[in-house]
Amino acid sequence: MLDRFRIVLVAPSHPGNIGAVARAMLTMGVSRLVLVDPLRFPDPEAVALASGATSVLAGARVVATLPEALAGCAWACGFSARPREFAGRVLPVRAAAQEAVASAAHGEVALVFGTEMSGLSNRDLARCTVVATVPANPAFASLNLAAAVQVAAYEVRVAALGDAVWPAPRFPPATADEIEALFAHGRHTLTAMRFLNPERPRRLMPRLQRLFARGGLEKEEVNILRGILARIDELIAHGPRR
Amino acid sequence: MLDRFRIVLVAPSHPGNIGAVARAMLTMGVSRLVLVDPLRFPDPEAVALASGATSVLAGARVVATLPEALAGCAWACGFSARPREFAGRVLPVRAAAQEAVASAAHGEVALVFGTEMSGLSNRDLARCTVVATVPANPAFASLNLAAAVQVAAYEVRVAALGDAVWPAPRFPPATADEIEALFAHGRHTLTAMRFLNPERPRRLMPRLQRLFARGGLEKEEVNILRGILARIDELIAHGPRR
Repeated sequence: MLDRFRIVLVAPSHPGNIGAVARAMLTMGVSRLVLVDPLRFPDPEAVALASGATSVLAGARVVATLPEALAGCAWACGFSARPREFAGRVLPVRAAAQEAVASAAHGEVALVFGTEMSGLSNRDLARCTVVATVPANPAFASLNLAAAVQVAAYEVRVAALGDAVWPAPRFPPATADEIEALFAHGRHTLTAMRFLNPERPRRLMPRLQRLFARGGLEKEEVNILRGILARIDELIAHGPRR
Repeated sequence: MLDRFRIVLVAPSHPGNIGAVARAMLTMGVSRLVLVDPLRFPDPEAVALASGATSVLAGARVVATLPEALAGCAWACGFSARPREFAGRVLPVRAAAQEAVASAAHGEVALVFGTEMSGLSNRDLARCTVVATVPANPAFASLNLAAAVQVAAYEVRVAALGDAVWPAPRFPPATADEIEALFAHGRHTLTAMRFLNPERPRRLMPRLQRLFARGGLEKEEVNILRGILARIDELIAHGPRR
């Protein structure tokens, strides 16, 4: 699915940005890069900023015009940071990514980014199916080129593959009877410590139960807590020396 | 709301990254930066990479330890690119941003990022309420520090303020009777051109109606199309010379 995506950079002026874009793309699993009339490419600065994503640079295609870059694409979205008076449909990057993924079911799609200083021309935007924009601080909306590609490629990845991440490690949970026994032990020890007065228990035990229920207790944690309680029991029975 | 967010960088080694982080933050309207034991700060490279977001650098607080950086925070999330065997809750960045915004209703919150090479230590992660991770290509998950901050701050902005963007420009739409008249004119001209045979119309007119209905016609566009039809009518009546 992500193989049907191409990232198109129109007239990028800094080779470092091309490298940083390659890195941003590959972190999200997008690897096809097309450069329209880059000022300097290939360039060692691009390799340095790619930080290992050299396969993307090696596979990059250089063309002279945007129509060449878009050949074969059934859907393209052009990014713009600022309002354009003649744009057709304008979408936030999340909705654009979802539409891109839906379109990629039927053919090739492109995400198109303009030059660092001024973005895409109105003429280039008119060649795209939709205009996309990254929601930003209106007082300082100047995302770095690679940062904009990072957000767009991230949204495409989430739209295509979801955002499941590595699961939290699982340890065996305590059972209800183990937890019941822990609180019985706790009630006993807290009473022996004279911290809990059974005549006036207030809400001490419910508070503690609420605290531990919220986090969910593991078997190992119940063992640790009962170990602490047992040690307190010893202290009460025999004094601190033993 | 975004004023309650602080971005914490633990032991950043490259001042350029600090500057790029400042820029990424400000594009999303987050301006409070805390640096834990930075290798070099302040530094002209940070200013260069901030690309105008110097207010964030000027306001940055430098502290010696993570607990100092988190003082006053009721909720903190630590970012990790790789699975940790002892993590508590692990959330994708989108869910973490939503929880951060919900927590920010009650107090200060922090997004914590580790050092460039190795990320946060397990000890530092244990100081955070949740662990967050940016979904990424498992074969190349190394987001640049500023790129990770960009995605996180973007998700926070969308969670806090939504992702409404500048609206597409609106022009007056054509009315049903204007569209009806356009197609009547079109049917007439296409017949005169002998492109449409009224005896065997096939599905030419329904196809054209479907095409224009999909895009939605504006008044001005109806005028342009009728102008083209009128010019064809002239050509048919008088030949190409007039």
